[in-house]
Amino acid sequence: RPKSTNLHKTAVIRCKAAVAWEPNKPLVIEEIEVAPPQANEVRIKIVATGVCHTDLYHLFEGMHKDGFPVVLGHEGAGIVESVGPGVTEFQPGDKVIPLFISQCRECRFCKSPKTNQCVKGWAADRYDVMALEETRLSCKGKKLLQFLGTSTFSEYTVLNQIAVAKIDPAAPLDKVCLLGCGVCTGFGAAVNTAKVEAGSTCAVFGLGAVGLAAVMGCKFAGAKRIIAVDINPEKFEKAKVFGATEFVNPKDHSRPINQVLAEMTDGGVDYSLECVGNVAVMRSALESCVKGWGVSVLVGWTDLHDFAARPIQLIAGRTWKGTLFGG
Amino acid sequence: RPKSTNLHKTAVIRCKAAVAWEPNKPLVIEEIEVAPPQANEVRIKIVATGVCHTDLYHLFEGMHKDGFPVVLGHEGAGIVESVGPGVTEFQPGDKVIPLFISQCRECRFCKSPKTNQCVKGWAADRYDVMALEETRLSCKGKKLLQFLGTSTFSEYTVLNQIAVAKIDPAAPLDKVCLLGCGVCTGFGAAVNTAKVEAGSTCAVFGLGAVGLAAVMGCKFAGAKRIIAVDINPEKFEKAKVFGATEFVNPKDHSRPINQVLAEMTDGGVDYSLECVGNVAVMRSALESCVKGWGVSVLVGWTDLHDFAARPIQLIAGRTWKGTLFGG
Repeated sequence: RPKSTNLHKTAVIRCKAAVAWEPNKPLVIEEIEVAPPQANEVRIKIVATGVCHTDLYHLFEGMHKDGFPVVLGHEGAGIVESVGPGVTEFQPGDKVIPLFISQCRECRFCKSPKTNQCVKGWAADRYDVMALEETRLSCKGKKLLQFLGTSTFSEYTVLNQIAVAKIDPAAPLDKVCLLGCGVCTGFGAAVNTAKVEAGSTCAVFGLGAVGLAAVMGCKFAGAKRIIAVDINPEKFEKAKVFGATEFVNPKDHSRPINQVLAEMTDGGVDYSLECVGNVAVMRSALESCVKGWGVSVLVGWTDLHDFAARPIQLIAGRTWKGTLFGG
Repeated sequence: RPKSTNLHKTAVIRCKAAVAWEPNKPLVIEEIEVAPPQANEVRIKIVATGVCHTDLYHLFEGMHKDGFPVVLGHEGAGIVESVGPGVTEFQPGDKVIPLFISQCRECRFCKSPKTNQCVKGWAADRYDVMALEETRLSCKGKKLLQFLGTSTFSEYTVLNQIAVAKIDPAAPLDKVCLLGCGVCTGFGAAVNTAKVEAGSTCAVFGLGAVGLAAVMGCKFAGAKRIIAVDINPEKFEKAKVFGATEFVNPKDHSRPINQVLAEMTDGGVDYSLECVGNVAVMRSALESCVKGWGVSVLVGWTDLHDFAARPIQLIAGRTWKGTLFGG
């Protein structure tokens, strides 16, 4: 391989991107400018991207005042086009997935086995800011914020190398792009965060990509029963393919869903995973857990409202956790 | 020892008790009748009892409609006076502590190492009922409910043998009565529920008996820093005796207490224990934890309001748990 110092490119790339100029308005396909990668940065040609509810959330619900204009998209896959000074682990042609959580490998969070939340990530300290101000994207002279640092709704984007994962050269980019958010989030929520045990009973609320991946994670962990919950019964067939063993449509019941699940499971499930991003569902998922040791995980994203429950729910031995990118 | 079958007594005992006839009114010292122990029951002469906030809560705040007249008190110690048929592990003269959580040793909860919440306990299924209907106490022809099954504000009380712990004959009952609730609750919250790790940083909110015991538990577990938080600075001296290393009075700060603690600890504490029973403090305690791995435990009891927080608090890697009798 050539020395990476030979690979630095300085030319601006002009390409197409879907720009969100303001909240609550459709995206506009624009020609944008993508600056060359600076120190420790990687410029990536995006080949495929998923659309995640969190993109929608930012555009239509979150509407953070500092969030526009922005290029959304955080579930992509692509090929390295050029690298900036100091980049040694990537070179042009590498297949990669951009990461909305960095891994600097040096901070106390990266060094801890307990978390994936690098100190350089955006969460917690400034969780109301989901669109990073530091950006290499611009359009018509205006800076375009990079949503979650990734901006995969663009033909090209630039990320710090600590937020890029190299993948198998044989990987089909139009499929593995889902590893950029949904699959890792749901699978990891079950395996890393809930730490589902073999032989246990699980409930997954919401059967989008994240929920289906959570079902897959529960199966991988050896769960005996995996109860898939959704108000759209058309999802059940697919959930079955991923490992769900039972199916509950809350619309089929007049009682609260936690009562239905308690009756099905002699008191509640061992693990519940909320894959919707709705605080009422978060409460139901917690209340669906068995007392004593039930664990409920927030997997879906929302930050508009508080989640809540009665203290006895936790005092009775339940645990409430959350996952970001599946831990 | 004589055969336990020789020890069954059938006489009703008449004794003094503090009766709560109705919510929001002072207790009244009455002469009450204590029925003889029935199958698997133990009649206990109560020698000492503590007064816990949960007694107060039931009388003045909870005011459950099915909760009166009731004999409060759940933090006592005494001596076995007589036993009912089938009781083999206790005999008159044994020093004991009544337990507000039973341990039947047979249910899936008792057999699990994860929990102390016996299926025969009152929590979870019927958490709005804290005064058990099955009672051996009466006054003026009226049945007196047994608060949490214990009713230690009486000179005599009767419990099922699965809710009685035999203790060292040398134990001073006026001191060890605190093991009946506060000390076990706080100490166990740190050691069993939070599972405080050696070298960690902890914060204890509220320095009553439970909070002081939580400080003691954190010290026992090897915590490096134990930050004691209370709005009454007179508590700090005693907290220091139990192991607290730093002291914070929220009244000394204009900023939210979680910001104060975050600055003291480079982002937040590893473990926080809410020993007040106030949903606003529960939120502060959670928000005082460091992202990534912070664990917050509800130790104080309240059930009048929801506890709540923004989803990002958990999604960023924090865990919310609760403890009952210290797990």
